[in-house]
Amino acid sequence: MQDSNSVGIVTPQYVHIDKPLCLKSGTVLNSYNLVYETYGKLNSARSNAVLICHALSGNHHVAGVYADKPKSTGWWDNMIGPNKAIDTNRFFVIGVNNLGGCHGSTGPASIDARTGKPYGANFPIVTVEDWVETQEQLANHLGIDEFAVVAGGSLGGMQALQWTLDFPERVRHALVIAAASKLTAQNIAFNDVARQAIITDQDFYGGDYYSYNTLPRRGLRLARMLGHITYLSDDSMAAKFGRELRSGTFSFGFDVEFEIESYLRYQGDKFADQFDANSYLLMTKALDYFDPANTYDGDLSAAFRAAKANFLVLSFTSDWRFSSERSRAIVKALLDNEINVSYAEITSSHGHDSFLMENHYYHQLVRAYMDNILI
Amino acid sequence: MQDSNSVGIVTPQYVHIDKPLCLKSGTVLNSYNLVYETYGKLNSARSNAVLICHALSGNHHVAGVYADKPKSTGWWDNMIGPNKAIDTNRFFVIGVNNLGGCHGSTGPASIDARTGKPYGANFPIVTVEDWVETQEQLANHLGIDEFAVVAGGSLGGMQALQWTLDFPERVRHALVIAAASKLTAQNIAFNDVARQAIITDQDFYGGDYYSYNTLPRRGLRLARMLGHITYLSDDSMAAKFGRELRSGTFSFGFDVEFEIESYLRYQGDKFADQFDANSYLLMTKALDYFDPANTYDGDLSAAFRAAKANFLVLSFTSDWRFSSERSRAIVKALLDNEINVSYAEITSSHGHDSFLMENHYYHQLVRAYMDNILI
Repeated sequence: MQDSNSVGIVTPQYVHIDKPLCLKSGTVLNSYNLVYETYGKLNSARSNAVLICHALSGNHHVAGVYADKPKSTGWWDNMIGPNKAIDTNRFFVIGVNNLGGCHGSTGPASIDARTGKPYGANFPIVTVEDWVETQEQLANHLGIDEFAVVAGGSLGGMQALQWTLDFPERVRHALVIAAASKLTAQNIAFNDVARQAIITDQDFYGGDYYSYNTLPRRGLRLARMLGHITYLSDDSMAAKFGRELRSGTFSFGFDVEFEIESYLRYQGDKFADQFDANSYLLMTKALDYFDPANTYDGDLSAAFRAAKANFLVLSFTSDWRFSSERSRAIVKALLDNEINVSYAEITSSHGHDSFLMENHYYHQLVRAYMDNILI
Repeated sequence: MQDSNSVGIVTPQYVHIDKPLCLKSGTVLNSYNLVYETYGKLNSARSNAVLICHALSGNHHVAGVYADKPKSTGWWDNMIGPNKAIDTNRFFVIGVNNLGGCHGSTGPASIDARTGKPYGANFPIVTVEDWVETQEQLANHLGIDEFAVVAGGSLGGMQALQWTLDFPERVRHALVIAAASKLTAQNIAFNDVARQAIITDQDFYGGDYYSYNTLPRRGLRLARMLGHITYLSDDSMAAKFGRELRSGTFSFGFDVEFEIESYLRYQGDKFADQFDANSYLLMTKALDYFDPANTYDGDLSAAFRAAKANFLVLSFTSDWRFSSERSRAIVKALLDNEINVSYAEITSSHGHDSFLMENHYYHQLVRAYMDNILI
């Protein structure tokens, strides 16, 4: 919905990066495309750029709407716009679709120039470190030497952390929201069940479903249904759905009975038509692999030794996917390095999804932090 | 493993119940079979009988081993046996496989006399109330007017609760372990994802996979993997598996990488070969439907007004499937009726699965309660 505080109509842009990318997997991508959007204006000092990193199912379309699709509001439109918490009257905000995605950047559905067919199962595994490398290339393309802010929630927050480690000179502030420094066994377990649902779908064809003119919809639907359970809190599900029945009485069958079943199946069906299964696999692997402390024998404080950025770390009380405990571990590691970090745990009943939602205290905190940034 | 405190070699028994059963679904089952096992001896007063109700994936084989399968230890063998917490030197313990199961009682894989084919998808939905009706028939068959104890964990605990409501004169003590008075939206959500995994498996054939000489293994495997995540605690998964890799380094592929993935996939594969998919669907529906307060407008205290039994209610600290909060709600409803209830929350890191495991304090509590029962 277009409002006066919206960036309004936006147009995606493409860049072809002709420089080979040496991925952590060992594979080399000779060149690749990135789709991105920008909102606001880059100032003459080029000191007001804000990079927004998306999470598992996100993309470059962070704010505003497309001219031909009035209901195509960007996923963080409530956060980014003129006079919003991330104010496009002051900042030049960039959203980019990560490599391996399915919204325009090179990914499994893209044509591999070497074969003339979609990469499919041949698309290499990509990591958060790889993504930050590509985002650096985009920054170069846009003439940005230093980001005022790199921001993201969940997997996007992990990218913000990685920026401060890999390019300490090129990021002044990191907004790390509902994130973690690594996934736990339980996190990985949920991701693996989601992956197995996709991979064992008989229409997956080892990732080459494009050749068979089909999609592993069943598996992707299950993956999304499961994901949704982890994004919502027990309490918010109870409050929103409880044990309400669609028809008011038991049907004694296996079709939709409870409202929560209806909701999850609807979300699953919708997602299965909109997202690419191979991309989903890649995104969950990037989540599983992220572990900056790993090269320091698990010592997260050691990992942040070279970081120079200032940090705002935020977590939400009902988030059980990446609980506040995870954010506090990040904060501790930063404090161990006497890094300037602000931290707040925001009271919210909406679970992990809270980072995407309107919350007055949350948005005021981000606004205050952003307003204090000198550009 | 046979030990001196084991009931030893056991043999299942069958009973054919020729009395029609009017299920809550409205369907009438003209007759059905129940498989059960007994351990210990029924005393002359017939006052020492203990009924053990199994949970989602359990069955009648509660203790001991089969003569031809040394590794076939019953699922609660650590709890039941000579000199164990439920002492078969004192008590006559009965385990029964519930209707709809797949271990010998009439279920979806059984031949429907009317068609000469397996019930398959035509097996009716069964509820906890239906099960208790059949268990009452078994009690009649064994000449037991009153159980000293009806006991169970999880879904088994729900059956114990139902006994006290439906047959208040026929149960003196109810052991209600790691249970709940109803499932939450989150609980139902997990069950529905598991069901959808099975139902959308291309080898499910609407439940008639027997006719196609195949099994919906992929779906059942996913259901079990997901179930396992809910049975374990975040902490115990972290302690047992953490982020350990099978090979020590990243493989950059989708095969098993993390130990937790290996564990879950192994559990899923094993289960998919041992359990019937239609039974799994039925068991989860029985879980979803259980809600004794529902006929009292959600008032659980009102639901227990007619109960006469004494209760031991137990919960485990790390159980996030049926948290202690659920048990406390049951205890409160019982106390509102001035019912004699003992309650303990047991410290354990093993999550919902704790009720199946050895835990000294837990077993001592049960032993003390059982020892105090006059027979």
